[in-house]
Amino acid sequence: MKAARYYDRGDIRVENIPVPPVLPGTVGIEVAFCGICGTDLHEYLDGPIFCPSATHAHAISGETAPVTLGHEMSGTVYALGEGVTDLKVGDKVVVEPYILHEGVDTSAASTDYHLSKDMGFIGLSGRGGGLAEKITVQRRWVHPIGDNVPLDHAALIEPLSVGYHAFKRSSGKAGDFALITGAGPIGLLTAAVLKAEGITVAISEPSALRRQKATETGVAAHVFDPRTDDVVGRVKELTGGKGADLGFECTSVQPAFDTLIDALKPTGVLVVESIWGKKASLDMQKLVLKEIDLRGTIAYVNSHADTIKLVQDGKIDLKPFITGVIGLDGLITEGFDTLINKNETAVKILVNPRL
Amino acid sequence: MKAARYYDRGDIRVENIPVPPVLPGTVGIEVAFCGICGTDLHEYLDGPIFCPSATHAHAISGETAPVTLGHEMSGTVYALGEGVTDLKVGDKVVVEPYILHEGVDTSAASTDYHLSKDMGFIGLSGRGGGLAEKITVQRRWVHPIGDNVPLDHAALIEPLSVGYHAFKRSSGKAGDFALITGAGPIGLLTAAVLKAEGITVAISEPSALRRQKATETGVAAHVFDPRTDDVVGRVKELTGGKGADLGFECTSVQPAFDTLIDALKPTGVLVVESIWGKKASLDMQKLVLKEIDLRGTIAYVNSHADTIKLVQDGKIDLKPFITGVIGLDGLITEGFDTLINKNETAVKILVNPRL
Repeated sequence: MKAARYYDRGDIRVENIPVPPVLPGTVGIEVAFCGICGTDLHEYLDGPIFCPSATHAHAISGETAPVTLGHEMSGTVYALGEGVTDLKVGDKVVVEPYILHEGVDTSAASTDYHLSKDMGFIGLSGRGGGLAEKITVQRRWVHPIGDNVPLDHAALIEPLSVGYHAFKRSSGKAGDFALITGAGPIGLLTAAVLKAEGITVAISEPSALRRQKATETGVAAHVFDPRTDDVVGRVKELTGGKGADLGFECTSVQPAFDTLIDALKPTGVLVVESIWGKKASLDMQKLVLKEIDLRGTIAYVNSHADTIKLVQDGKIDLKPFITGVIGLDGLITEGFDTLINKNETAVKILVNPRL
Repeated sequence: MKAARYYDRGDIRVENIPVPPVLPGTVGIEVAFCGICGTDLHEYLDGPIFCPSATHAHAISGETAPVTLGHEMSGTVYALGEGVTDLKVGDKVVVEPYILHEGVDTSAASTDYHLSKDMGFIGLSGRGGGLAEKITVQRRWVHPIGDNVPLDHAALIEPLSVGYHAFKRSSGKAGDFALITGAGPIGLLTAAVLKAEGITVAISEPSALRRQKATETGVAAHVFDPRTDDVVGRVKELTGGKGADLGFECTSVQPAFDTLIDALKPTGVLVVESIWGKKASLDMQKLVLKEIDLRGTIAYVNSHADTIKLVQDGKIDLKPFITGVIGLDGLITEGFDTLINKNETAVKILVNPRL
C-alpha cells in the first residue's frame, strides 16, 4: 500500500509498504481522510521531535525512522482482530492516536493518561499512520462515529478534541464570555467548541485573512485586530466593564498573553494551548491580585466521545474548516508547502490516500 | 483611647484619640490582641500603599492619613449598635477587615467580594484599626469565635484565613502531598491549614532558623534547604516518583517558583501567595506539557467561619506561632524593628493595647 514515511528533517517519502496485519485486539481501518497537522510541519522543518530518528527508537513503540506519518484520520473498519466484538466491518471510525506504556490507566475515569511517561503518537512515534491506505489500531483508540458524520468532516475530530479538552480545562459554561488570541486551526476549532457550548467568543488575530475566516465560519461573535483595536477595552465594553470569564492563548506570542491577563475578569481562567519555544514573562502581581487561574492544556484525554457527539448532534459544522483535499503524491507540494507558505488562508488540508 | 496611627512612611505615632461611636448596624469591640503583619511593615518602610496619604483619600472610606493601623485583631464585644441582635456583650470575636463599596455581594455564596473595585482594609485604609484600645466594626465583618479559643491565639485567625483561602484555591484534599517554598508567617500558617486538612507538607526554606520553626511547630513532615538539598529529587522520592500534588509559593523568588514547577506532578496545582515586585519568568512549555494549574490567591473570601472551626476543633494550635507580646508603646522599637531586623526567628508579634 502507499504510505507517507518520515525519514528525517526535510525527508518525507511516499512509498509502497506492506499492509499491517490485524492482530488480536486490534482493528483494521481503511483510511478515508487524514489531516495535516502543525506538528507534522514541525517534524518536517525542525524534527525529529515526536518522531524517532534512524538511530534512536521511540521508548514505547520501539520503532526507528522511517515511520508512517498522519494522526488526524477517519476511515472504515475492514477487519477485526480476534476478541474485538463491539465493532463491525463497515463501521465509520476515527482514531485517538496515543501510544502509551502497558499498565497506564486508560479507563473512562482517567484524567491524565495523555501525560504519562514517554507518551507517543500514532502517526509520529510509530505504529503506522493515517497518511497511508490502511492502518491497524488497538481497539482502545478506535472511536465509532455513527453514520451521519461525513468522513471528510470526521478527519477534523482529532484537532477538534484538542479544542474540546481545552474547553474542559477552562471550566467554562454556557453564558460565559471567552477571548481567544490567534485564529489558526486550533484557535478556530476551540472557538467552534466554545460556541457549541453556549459561550460567546471574541477572537483577536492580526492576519486579515484569518480574521475573515473567523467571521465566515461563524464561530466568533467579535473579531479584533490587536494592531489597531483596543482589545482589552473592547472586551470590557462587551462584558459590562467586568472582563472576560475565559481566555485561550493560541499564538505563543508574549503581547497576546499580556492582553489575555488584562482582559480577564478577577477569578478568570486563562488556558494556554500554544507551544512556546521560549520562556514567557508573567506579571505575577496581576495573577495574584486578580486571582487568575493559568492552566496548561495539551492534546485530549477521554475527550473523543463528547467531541464526536457535538458533531453528530449538528452543534459543530466542520465543513468550513476544510480548505483543501489532496492525494498522497501531492503531500509536500500541495500540502506542506501550502501550509508553510500560505498558511493564512489554509485551515485544514486533508489527504485522501486513494486519490 | 490610645491608638497607633499611620501618618506617612516612617511616621507612626501612638496618640490619644476619641473612642469611635457604636452606630446602628455596628459592633463595639474592646481589642484584646492585634498582630503585626508584613503589610504593616511595608506601609512603614515603603508606603503609603493600602494606607491613604494626608492628601489622597481612600476611594471607599474617604479617609486621609492619619489612620489607625492593625487588621489582625481579636477582642470582646462591649456594645452593640441598633439592629444588631445576633451577638451579645461579652462575646469573643475576630474581624474580617474589609472595606468594600456598598452593593457588593458579600453573601455566603460570593467567591469574589475580596477582589471588588477599590477594596480596602480596616486598619490600613481607614475605619479604625486593631492597634487601639477599641474599634467599631460593621456587623458583617465581625465573627464570633466561641469560648474555647484564647484571645491571643484568635489574633492569628486573620493570617490563618489567608492560608485557608490558599488551601481552598488549591483544590487540595486529604492524602495529597504539598511542597511549600518559604517558611515565613504565611508559609507556616498555610502549612498548618494543610496539615489540619490531612495533607502531607514539605517546606523548602534557606534560613536555618525558619526551618527549625517549621520543624518545631510540627506543621511540616519534611523540611529542605534549597541551597544543599535536591528539592525536586526529594519530592519525587517521597511521592513514589510522581511529584507533588500541590505547590504553594510564599517567597516571591524566581528559583523557588522554578523548583515548584519541576516538583509538581502532571496535573499538579501551584498556588502563588506571595506578592512579586517584578515579573516572573514562566516556562510555558512545562505548564502546557504537564497541564499545570497556576493560581493566584489573595487574602480570603467567606473563609473565616471554616478557619475558626479548625481552631475551635483543636486541629490547629496557634500558640507556637506567637513569638512575642508587647504593648502599644513598644510598637516600633519592640515590634517593627524586631520583625524588620530579626525576622528569621519572629513569626507573629502581638500587641496588647492595655499593656
